[in-house]
Amino acid sequence: MSAPLADAALDQLFREARSYNAWLDRDVSDAQIHAIYELMKMGPTSANQQPARLVWCKSPEAKARLAAHAMDKNQPKIAGAPVCVIVGMDLEFHEQLPWLFPHADARSWFLKDELRQANAFRNSSLQGAYLMLAARALGLDCGPMSGFDNAAVDAEFFADQPSVRSNFICAIGYGDPASIFGRSPRPGFDVFNRIL
Amino acid sequence: MSAPLADAALDQLFREARSYNAWLDRDVSDAQIHAIYELMKMGPTSANQQPARLVWCKSPEAKARLAAHAMDKNQPKIAGAPVCVIVGMDLEFHEQLPWLFPHADARSWFLKDELRQANAFRNSSLQGAYLMLAARALGLDCGPMSGFDNAAVDAEFFADQPSVRSNFICAIGYGDPASIFGRSPRPGFDVFNRIL
Repeated sequence: MSAPLADAALDQLFREARSYNAWLDRDVSDAQIHAIYELMKMGPTSANQQPARLVWCKSPEAKARLAAHAMDKNQPKIAGAPVCVIVGMDLEFHEQLPWLFPHADARSWFLKDELRQANAFRNSSLQGAYLMLAARALGLDCGPMSGFDNAAVDAEFFADQPSVRSNFICAIGYGDPASIFGRSPRPGFDVFNRIL
Repeated sequence: MSAPLADAALDQLFREARSYNAWLDRDVSDAQIHAIYELMKMGPTSANQQPARLVWCKSPEAKARLAAHAMDKNQPKIAGAPVCVIVGMDLEFHEQLPWLFPHADARSWFLKDELRQANAFRNSSLQGAYLMLAARALGLDCGPMSGFDNAAVDAEFFADQPSVRSNFICAIGYGDPASIFGRSPRPGFDVFNRIL
């Protein structure tokens, strides 16, 4: 049982955080990348599947390889970011469950392809959200994108891991306030919620 | 540009948070449900899709209706929670984009069924993660579950919204520390990460 976080923390995580399109000239260190993962991996996934497979494109070469497969308007967002992470998902995540979920035979729960695919997509998306909120919690900004050629990115970065597919990508760094637009409208509670 | 949150906040959000299986006898108010949504709706979705459609089962009757379609072991987790939310997704979310993303014709980007389905699934899952971290940020605990009959839940709760499908469900309340197991192992950085 915990108290609510302070308003400044809620602002940093949710209320004042924005998706940035350009980045200040300030590095993101390998230590910061590790720190993001150390937090995100604690977030819940079904049967501790941990299906996310992460490729952190940090060198100019890696960012150029990724940007080449993105929509035109996303290319500078990738190339100009300190790091852009590919959130992939392992469709054969169940092969890791004997050590990730050792107290039951969870591998046997996910033998059907369709069920496994839905679980990989759902849970790697959850992990992508944990990643973004972890980055924000550590004082960084995010710029998530799904406008890229998934099959081409898979061929470029996951050729040696044929069971892995890209889900989405996310630039991370210190956002340039000049690069954001006015915030899009948010729905009132009653629009998309019912309490029964 | 922000500083990292205090360690106590990182603990509350990620490091010491757990998925609970049973709940203390303490109510979650409608005001708390609204507060969760006010935070979660600020999280990024592609083109501000906001595809999540939320049904908060709070009355004993609503929880019983939901529990009836869950796996046996999940039924008491639902019935015993102060509230259990169904995170649904609107496969026709693009019809809302003229007001959610007013500065471009975003509706026209999502006319293909397969693309729309993937976007609804990805982005409603992101929103489900924002929901869980918002609840934790507000001092609450979560118990996410995907072990239920999606088609039966859709028929039970979304019969009047035929474009909405259930994604996952999540019990929310004040977790009973006696109901959790030892934490499942978490991977070291090098297992599922590469820095290029």
